[in-house]
Amino acid sequence: MNPEFDGDRIFSAAAHIDCILRFEAALARALARAGVMSSETAEGIEQICRIELFNIDDLQRDAIHAGTIATPLVQQLISRAPKASRLYVHWGATSQDAIDTALVLQMRTGLDALVADLHETADASAALAETHRRSVMPGRTLLQQAVPITFGLKAARWLGALARQTQALRTLRREALVLQFGGAAGTLAALGDVAPEIARLLGEELDLPVPDLPWHAERDRPATVVAALGVTAGVVAKIATDIVLMAQTEVAEVAEGLAVGKGISSAMPHKRNPVDATNAIAAARLAIGAVPVVLSAMPQEHERGAGGWQAEWTAIPDAFRHTLRAAAHARSAVAGLDVRPDQMRANLDRGAGALMAESLATALTGRVGRPEAQRIVMDLVESAFRHQIPFREAVSKDPAITEWLNPEALARALDPAAYLGSTNLLIDRALRSWRDLNQADQR
Amino acid sequence: MNPEFDGDRIFSAAAHIDCILRFEAALARALARAGVMSSETAEGIEQICRIELFNIDDLQRDAIHAGTIATPLVQQLISRAPKASRLYVHWGATSQDAIDTALVLQMRTGLDALVADLHETADASAALAETHRRSVMPGRTLLQQAVPITFGLKAARWLGALARQTQALRTLRREALVLQFGGAAGTLAALGDVAPEIARLLGEELDLPVPDLPWHAERDRPATVVAALGVTAGVVAKIATDIVLMAQTEVAEVAEGLAVGKGISSAMPHKRNPVDATNAIAAARLAIGAVPVVLSAMPQEHERGAGGWQAEWTAIPDAFRHTLRAAAHARSAVAGLDVRPDQMRANLDRGAGALMAESLATALTGRVGRPEAQRIVMDLVESAFRHQIPFREAVSKDPAITEWLNPEALARALDPAAYLGSTNLLIDRALRSWRDLNQADQR
Amino acid sequence: MNPEFDGDRIFSAAAHIDCILRFEAALARALARAGVMSSETAEGIEQICRIELFNIDDLQRDAIHAGTIATPLVQQLISRAPKASRLYVHWGATSQDAIDTALVLQMRTGLDALVADLHETADASAALAETHRRSVMPGRTLLQQAVPITFGLKAARWLGALARQTQALRTLRREALVLQFGGAAGTLAALGDVAPEIARLLGEELDLPVPDLPWHAERDRPATVVAALGVTAGVVAKIATDIVLMAQTEVAEVAEGLAVGKGISSAMPHKRNPVDATNAIAAARLAIGAVPVVLSAMPQEHERGAGGWQAEWTAIPDAFRHTLRAAAHARSAVAGLDVRPDQMRANLDRGAGALMAESLATALTGRVGRPEAQRIVMDLVESAFRHQIPFREAVSKDPAITEWLNPEALARALDPAAYLGSTNLLIDRALRSWRDLNQADQR
Amino acid sequence: MNPEFDGDRIFSAAAHIDCILRFEAALARALARAGVMSSETAEGIEQICRIELFNIDDLQRDAIHAGTIATPLVQQLISRAPKASRLYVHWGATSQDAIDTALVLQMRTGLDALVADLHETADASAALAETHRRSVMPGRTLLQQAVPITFGLKAARWLGALARQTQALRTLRREALVLQFGGAAGTLAALGDVAPEIARLLGEELDLPVPDLPWHAERDRPATVVAALGVTAGVVAKIATDIVLMAQTEVAEVAEGLAVGKGISSAMPHKRNPVDATNAIAAARLAIGAVPVVLSAMPQEHERGAGGWQAEWTAIPDAFRHTLRAAAHARSAVAGLDVRPDQMRANLDRGAGALMAESLATALTGRVGRPEAQRIVMDLVESAFRHQIPFREAVSKDPAITEWLNPEALARALDPAAYLGSTNLLIDRALRSWRDLNQADQR
Repeated sequence: MNPEFDGDRIFSAAAHIDCILRFEAALARALARAGVMSSETAEGIEQICRIELFNIDDLQRDAIHAGTIATPLVQQLISRAPKASRLYVHWGATSQDAIDTALVLQMRTGLDALVADLHETADASAALAETHRRSVMPGRTLLQQAVPITFGLKAARWLGALARQTQALRTLRREALVLQFGGAAGTLAALGDVAPEIARLLGEELDLPVPDLPWHAERDRPATVVAALGVTAGVVAKIATDIVLMAQTEVAEVAEGLAVGKGISSAMPHKRNPVDATNAIAAARLAIGAVPVVLSAMPQEHERGAGGWQAEWTAIPDAFRHTLRAAAHARSAVAGLDVRPDQMRANLDRGAGALMAESLATALTGRVGRPEAQRIVMDLVESAFRHQIPFREAVSKDPAITEWLNPEALARALDPAAYLGSTNLLIDRALRSWRDLNQADQR
Repeated sequence: MNPEFDGDRIFSAAAHIDCILRFEAALARALARAGVMSSETAEGIEQICRIELFNIDDLQRDAIHAGTIATPLVQQLISRAPKASRLYVHWGATSQDAIDTALVLQMRTGLDALVADLHETADASAALAETHRRSVMPGRTLLQQAVPITFGLKAARWLGALARQTQALRTLRREALVLQFGGAAGTLAALGDVAPEIARLLGEELDLPVPDLPWHAERDRPATVVAALGVTAGVVAKIATDIVLMAQTEVAEVAEGLAVGKGISSAMPHKRNPVDATNAIAAARLAIGAVPVVLSAMPQEHERGAGGWQAEWTAIPDAFRHTLRAAAHARSAVAGLDVRPDQMRANLDRGAGALMAESLATALTGRVGRPEAQRIVMDLVESAFRHQIPFREAVSKDPAITEWLNPEALARALDPAAYLGSTNLLIDRALRSWRDLNQADQR
Repeated sequence: MNPEFDGDRIFSAAAHIDCILRFEAALARALARAGVMSSETAEGIEQICRIELFNIDDLQRDAIHAGTIATPLVQQLISRAPKASRLYVHWGATSQDAIDTALVLQMRTGLDALVADLHETADASAALAETHRRSVMPGRTLLQQAVPITFGLKAARWLGALARQTQALRTLRREALVLQFGGAAGTLAALGDVAPEIARLLGEELDLPVPDLPWHAERDRPATVVAALGVTAGVVAKIATDIVLMAQTEVAEVAEGLAVGKGISSAMPHKRNPVDATNAIAAARLAIGAVPVVLSAMPQEHERGAGGWQAEWTAIPDAFRHTLRAAAHARSAVAGLDVRPDQMRANLDRGAGALMAESLATALTGRVGRPEAQRIVMDLVESAFRHQIPFREAVSKDPAITEWLNPEALARALDPAAYLGSTNLLIDRALRSWRDLNQADQR
Repeated sequence: MNPEFDGDRIFSAAAHIDCILRFEAALARALARAGVMSSETAEGIEQICRIELFNIDDLQRDAIHAGTIATPLVQQLISRAPKASRLYVHWGATSQDAIDTALVLQMRTGLDALVADLHETADASAALAETHRRSVMPGRTLLQQAVPITFGLKAARWLGALARQTQALRTLRREALVLQFGGAAGTLAALGDVAPEIARLLGEELDLPVPDLPWHAERDRPATVVAALGVTAGVVAKIATDIVLMAQTEVAEVAEGLAVGKGISSAMPHKRNPVDATNAIAAARLAIGAVPVVLSAMPQEHERGAGGWQAEWTAIPDAFRHTLRAAAHARSAVAGLDVRPDQMRANLDRGAGALMAESLATALTGRVGRPEAQRIVMDLVESAFRHQIPFREAVSKDPAITEWLNPEALARALDPAAYLGSTNLLIDRALRSWRDLNQADQR
């Protein structure tokens, strides 16, 4: 639990209890509005629904024996309530109504915080995509240099993935977070005919949609949210992985921004570790670890599960806390990224010619056909590698090449900046989509 | 691999290669339409893009050394192509373009098959919800009888979850399945200025949307699909779990329909095992197991991952195959379900009165207040349990009860069918939503 | 964090820091014993290695930026140390040496606590196996009654699995928990020639074996421990699952012992929920969820991983905390189990004869051959089921049966207590092995 | 399914059926030896227990409806058996006895194949450790250069982890693979008093230990094996990850050996992809993915699980197949590794002095104390980085350095080969342990 992180606050034990109290207070107001009790009675309940009246540790301990945290909490509410209100505490509800709705309220805050973080990282990525749209660097497949790209294109791809996640999470916030209210086994029997109206009012009080049915044992909604967190964690970890790899001593294309005390090794006073990216990867691994726990817990027995539901109490907060940590670290890494276009350019000359081989083969293909072009280039790559001479040099000396390509065509075929294909267009598209998305959100 | 299952066919090795061939043929047509080659040349390629020309086992073996299955396949295409077409095979594309797009095509077919299965199961659930809307049975929390529900309500909850999944999967089919086309490192460099037009035509040929950017190392789209399969598997396993539990010898509220040879134990000639539900649970566990593999594989390095992408080749088909198996078994179990309302009603009398205790407490609450009502009822439950007498009998003899409730009120308080709350309304809602959804789909 | 649970204490943030301080103090003593510093200097370090001198929250916050918690802790140690000792704080060590060794110390305590818990549960299971060796009950496959067993046999099987786990965990405590000490990249370069001797002394101080090599990026040892915790969690959850199923209202063969406030539902005053078993299942799911996180984190880069190692800091404590919770709940459930042999016996008559069908078929087989015997019995089962009459009755009226079996043989063939096979012998074996194991441990 | 891989053969559907047939044949022999049937009758069974008599696809299809593959197989055996033997086919056994024992037989072969693979990789690592014990290279933490190591040390660490896994797997082969034989619900009731003797003989026939108790629903043994496979996969993936990282174009310290068609990109004719290491990582991810499936499936209900056991049928073979693939690829990568000590040495000069900073600080510490030494070195690192000059140059010009270190001491402080600490000793230890292990195995 580290209050520096949104997720640690939003999903603390105290925050959960606070949200249960919000449920109980809202239920009292809804019952009063529906005429089940007087508004004075409801006020009697509301006034004790304050987190500072309760001892979190005691409640947690009692919860273990009672089976849920709502049980001892409701008992304490009853004992603290004014005599006239006592009868109406938690009226018609079951523990699961309170706990699930509380978790939904926490998830709503959690998704908002997460979207905000991703949005900032996306903005920072968009800025990098624009600034570095012409910063040529090696494109790498299987960690081998392949053909040139620009760092702007890489950042645009980060942007695209982040933008898709902000959209996905916003949709879930709207559709997957609904009121839980069904009573002991989901029939709302204890409330009689007024039950649907109370559900409606309770949803209104908490600003939550009322679903067709209670969902005590149908966990697809929270599972879908957690699964989306897993995807978000994966997106964030991909960016962090790229940063760690580009930050390698031998690659040195980026470094994380310096901050006081950041990334300093105890044994090595000089190292500039990619601490944020590393932390983001670690947190993402933990977030992803929560996904199968929640999915495996879905087959909950009958009208309330024995084990699966209870596992969610830890696994869902874990999923949020770790994803929020991962996102915060990724934001910090991307926003403060120290980019080194010179080093990117320098790296283009590493390798035995791999990087411009496709370009050269493409140039030759028009003259000699693809199979022959590939044969010529492959021979050159092997020869450059065998004789330990630069590919560029091997090429310029080769009679087959000079026969087919004049010096200008050859120079062009070997210029990384001239072999970027649709890079610019792709960056434009990603930036435009992000702008459109933001404008749509503001409308 | 069992051809009885859609997923086993759609995600066989041969089907994958077939989809790669569809990609290569479509690429040839797109290149011809863009004027890069003549339509004769394209036809020369198309005519060899037929699965029956290739030896699947050989290709799989060669794939291991080449790194991808597209490499030996393209080599064979080149060697089989008419001389004039040879040069243009796989032009401008990279292995990953072919493999990813092929997988997208398979996923599209897979999602269609899955939605069709879920739709049938939802229809069968809707029929059960309607037929059994008054079949009273015990509602159970933590596998203990709690308050009465009807089997129709349980089936309506299944329906709700299935309906939400069909919607979620349909949305993904529309939004997450897009063309992959970027060339060696996602710049489309080998195709020059005509690249975006070729991408557009290729998308048209395959009826796939063209995304802003290639997504060689940004795997959120397939990961989102697989995560949704995990949720679907969970939904299906929940239904199957309910069936297995209701089918227990001691509960006997449902049985799976009989089919020749189905569920016959080798040692016990008489047992009627819930084979479909069991198989559904097993397959769902396997499907869920594929989710973290795909999520963990998301942080793919630079422009093409080394290990993460390759793991998807097995994990994504696994996720589909297992989810499709789970869905097929669930469909069979639900559609053929043998429901026994008499046994459900008989089970209402089991237990030490737990089932009607809340009802009785609710009836008493209006007279004596909730704490007192609960105290009276808890004493009765304990006493009935201690003296091993039916709760009903203990209640009718208790002076506190007879003081507060007249015989009619008491009979009503102990009648399960009179304590169903909003059950009917909830079933109506679920059925109406399903009808609305289907009508919207048909428009 | 609930101090009622061993795991929550042993794996708290404070406990981790305390173990790092133990490492630093032990290192100082080892350096003094090796003559690298005076014993006064070492005492200067030892006296500040006290947890109460440090602010846990501050250290955790600083850890996020520094990359490890050891970095700010060592900085604070240096600033608090007497001037003469300052130079020697953390001498020759790297953060990972301190953190990994601290975790090893915590794991040692954790394994001891876990083995103690499992041992108690095994003892309780052994007592149940002895007491109930003749308590006949239905054996169930796929949750259908199959043939009779005794509850003692079920408890003996629990015992067997628990015994195997105590052995496995004891072996790991001895073999997998070793000192981590290698310096910045595992060469011990900063300590010169005296390094191996210091490692030996440090191991002695902490009572930890010194391995051949540092293991900064070879994580098989902790991964093996966590994997074993996953198996332990599975064993415990199996027992808890059996209890939840036997405790079902309709089965009622066991109930969890009553304790104040335990398992009381907020809405239903009467329910006796299997709270311990439910909590054990939930905790086991969470423990198992940590296993793939730790396994997936194993491929750590070069000499220290970026992301994988850091994920262990949360996942390993999680694995222990959840397994210890699961084990504690299982112990409580088994030790206090309320067993109802009468109900077990009563359940034997449920079902359409499935339970004694094999017995009857076996009795007939000697007379008419297996195929015919099975055919006769299957017909009887189906007929009893179709006519809704007890199997026993259907059998006694059947001419084929009375032709082949005399009344005495028939009675025997239908007596569950006479069809228990090797049950007694199997229970004896399990009890004897447990006794032998305990005697071997005491020697 | 690729027959090139051991695991694909050992865990094919046909191989599983073959092992079930081995079980049935052995059971017949055991029954004959125990006097339950004549040896002619047993021979009648044995002679039809041949895989070539059965249609695998048909059996798999029938298995889906029957619930297990043993059911239709036994039915076919009965119908094919000579009349006199028909009665005794599968006598006293249950489907699970046959299936579990068959899986145990497959696991035994699988573990042997895996140990053999790991052994070869360990031998190859040992050779690398010896050959390159003085091949100095950068040690890297968080992918940043830290202090020098040798490639021999890295290989020795691989060796250590591989050696530990061969030991762990050998132990499991001996202890975790036991006969399954219990009859319908684990009481061996159908066999009467002779049951224990038949179990003993059956174990003898199959060369499998007979455990105290059947383990139909106690799955700790197979779960422990699968968990160990997960650890093995992690060990193998760590080695493969190191290779992929060292093979990066910008690092170029190793390359995978060339083989025909290996690692050739379809678009880039020149690239030398680390195909084996990539495949090993992918397979390891898949193997690890099977672990939580098997662990989660452990809580199997009562005497035979509904869903968990059935999930094992796919997940356990998956775990073996993927681990065996990972191990085979790792063996190929390590055994054929092309190591480039010159490039390792060249890389030592990359980075802003990080690599020798600790060495320099250590040299200075004796003169000025650690805090001052670290301050001086950190300033130099920052200054070298800021002015973009080599660290070596910055150091040699610094007056603080030249004041405290004479040229010889300075040269030594900056010589990577002189700052290797206990590297040699550590390599020796790893090699000696491996030799000792092998000698112990041969005795």
